[in-house]
Amino acid sequence: MSPNLALNELVERRRAAGDSLVHLGFGEARLPAFAPLTARLTAGAHRNAYGPVAGAAPVREAVAGYFARRRMPTDSDQVVVGPGSKPLLTALQFAVPGDVLVPRPCWNSYAPQVRLAGKKAFGVPIPAECGGVPEPDALRRTLHAARAAGHDPRVVVLTLPDNPTGTLAPPRLVREVCAVAEEEDLLVVSDEIYRDTVHDPATTLLGPAEVAPGRTVVTTGLSKSLAIGGWRIGAVRFPAGSLGERIRAEVLSVASDMWSALAGPMQEVAEYAFGEPPEIRRHLAACARLHGAVARAVHRAAVGASARCRPPTAGFYVYPDFEPVRGELAARGVTDSGSLQLHLLDRYGVAVLAGHHLGDSHGALRFKAATSMLYGDTRKQQEAALDAADPLRLPHVGTVLTRIEEAFRGLSSRNAGEAA
Amino acid sequence: MSPNLALNELVERRRAAGDSLVHLGFGEARLPAFAPLTARLTAGAHRNAYGPVAGAAPVREAVAGYFARRRMPTDSDQVVVGPGSKPLLTALQFAVPGDVLVPRPCWNSYAPQVRLAGKKAFGVPIPAECGGVPEPDALRRTLHAARAAGHDPRVVVLTLPDNPTGTLAPPRLVREVCAVAEEEDLLVVSDEIYRDTVHDPATTLLGPAEVAPGRTVVTTGLSKSLAIGGWRIGAVRFPAGSLGERIRAEVLSVASDMWSALAGPMQEVAEYAFGEPPEIRRHLAACARLHGAVARAVHRAAVGASARCRPPTAGFYVYPDFEPVRGELAARGVTDSGSLQLHLLDRYGVAVLAGHHLGDSHGALRFKAATSMLYGDTRKQQEAALDAADPLRLPHVGTVLTRIEEAFRGLSSRNAGEAA
Repeated sequence: MSPNLALNELVERRRAAGDSLVHLGFGEARLPAFAPLTARLTAGAHRNAYGPVAGAAPVREAVAGYFARRRMPTDSDQVVVGPGSKPLLTALQFAVPGDVLVPRPCWNSYAPQVRLAGKKAFGVPIPAECGGVPEPDALRRTLHAARAAGHDPRVVVLTLPDNPTGTLAPPRLVREVCAVAEEEDLLVVSDEIYRDTVHDPATTLLGPAEVAPGRTVVTTGLSKSLAIGGWRIGAVRFPAGSLGERIRAEVLSVASDMWSALAGPMQEVAEYAFGEPPEIRRHLAACARLHGAVARAVHRAAVGASARCRPPTAGFYVYPDFEPVRGELAARGVTDSGSLQLHLLDRYGVAVLAGHHLGDSHGALRFKAATSMLYGDTRKQQEAALDAADPLRLPHVGTVLTRIEEAFRGLSSRNAGEAA
Repeated sequence: MSPNLALNELVERRRAAGDSLVHLGFGEARLPAFAPLTARLTAGAHRNAYGPVAGAAPVREAVAGYFARRRMPTDSDQVVVGPGSKPLLTALQFAVPGDVLVPRPCWNSYAPQVRLAGKKAFGVPIPAECGGVPEPDALRRTLHAARAAGHDPRVVVLTLPDNPTGTLAPPRLVREVCAVAEEEDLLVVSDEIYRDTVHDPATTLLGPAEVAPGRTVVTTGLSKSLAIGGWRIGAVRFPAGSLGERIRAEVLSVASDMWSALAGPMQEVAEYAFGEPPEIRRHLAACARLHGAVARAVHRAAVGASARCRPPTAGFYVYPDFEPVRGELAARGVTDSGSLQLHLLDRYGVAVLAGHHLGDSHGALRFKAATSMLYGDTRKQQEAALDAADPLRLPHVGTVLTRIEEAFRGLSSRNAGEAA
């Protein structure tokens, strides 16, 4: 099973058995469903017919409008909705030929999706400043080496903003990667499911579909930005023109045999949410603010414990590197990402996802910490976190942050018992 | 795109353009969602978290109970729910090794699902008396010939009751096919999504999981029996024991990268529906009665127009063979299933699915007629059909049946213009 979902189930079982765990191992925005969304779900209950594979016209028009407001002019015929962006990304791998380049580290399902389609995934290291894009020179090198070895890479997957690093590739890097894609005739798949979780609304996001519109497919969804991962709503935007039409037809072909269509009531929700009425925009902003405040606090905890860590600017992740305290960790038998994950769970009750599950090297002392499960265990606590001017001052948030700080400090201490 | 979904979209477009069409080309139970189901959907709106890939424990327990009441004792750990049985059947093809034997004709998505998984599908003719199972001797012959040609068939897919023939394989045939599966070490995948649409409640259904429990995987869903195809709810039951556990783990692995989980609100619906409270059982019976009455009427229309056709006993399909009037059809240029489908649509405004889309031979004059879209265009008409002691006497049902009779009679007439 994918390691993040497996870890999530392990944590749930341990908690059910009475363990007190801090769950940083799963990228779920643990917030209540926004009331207007549940109202739309109910309103859509009458939609019990299969309907078109691509989604009904009104929901595709709403998604087209969503993209158009983000400098990607879109016709509704360029849009397909599905039960999450996961099946859409999977279908894409079946729909387009060629092996696939992915950033390293990256979301743990890209490579398995590529393999399901009978193709090979090549990880390319990310630059020092951010994740979600391959370092451009390394991209060229990996590409040429793969070709020389008889492989046929024709696709590069980007994540903007990024999971697992919680960072956003700046326009310069997006342009450089798109230039490589043009030179080398690669299709760009831009996973933008975290787009509406950028912490600072003034941040510039330049998407590859703006730079290389003819060769970029964009995926998105409501799971992260609106905290409805359990409703499974995703969308994909194909480029205008004949290449996009061909890929779309192939995706629809795969979809028609693999899942049929997004559930009707969920199309009703998607039509409303992608239409972005004022209350949705306000809610998105409130969620992004909360994600930012808590992600920055966990970042401070990591850096305060001597780890290196890119400052998070979007989403709800940090990706610390405990290389600076390798000696201290080795003294207690922690020498790679697997043993680091295990040690954090067993010694400190903190669940994180080891970097090697994301394609990173086993030997590195890195992990992904998802900070979006820290908003409280009850609906009331979560709503308080969302409403708070400074969520860190809420006792239920502060307590768990203190526990994380202690755990991270414990990692960098010479004495395994010290900070426990 | 799968031919049934493509045809459905074509019909919708032609209707939107003003054409008056009779739609027999799509296997959707065109009935309103039953009110208690929409109530559960609303009640489940708060379930916005991802949850376990297999489905939460209560819905898996409800599905286990559903199977147990059908002589298949089931632990909830043997169950996985998903967004339709389509993704579950797809994941199964990835989860188990080996090429696949399917009945011929059969549902149009089995073979594409097999091919997505990089394997080969072999069609085996069905017996004269029913569809959904390969004729046992032909199964052996096809299997041995495939092995002799270097292929590796290890799975046989059955459909009980059957789509497209609307028939149910009798216990004798199920036992014979299971005996071949035992001899030849085949895994049996039994698609039982039409199980609760058997027209006569006194009918004996012997499932392969009763005959060959250790090697049978069963899939089901609520799309057909409860007319909520647009809600996308399916379930799979794995055999008890180590083989079942291995396949289940592989299916969960594929699922975790391909779609994550069934949407939370849909799990709420599934938990309720698979629990089969009295109002659900009554509703299932009313639907099955209606399906039977209308399917039998369309069967009479086919037989009355000189076609051969197995009498339907379950589901909402008939699969007529116009071979007896090949001469009359040839006189107007109709010589195979493709031209027969086209002729029915263009000349009579009747949409059916040509047999070759279901793996049948192109030269045969056979098609699938789905009879479940004939209950009316409005909710009120559909509810009247469901409530009627004799739905055939409702004017809106009678009118369309008359049109079908005329179209079928037209096919067997020497004069193309006669019955139009």
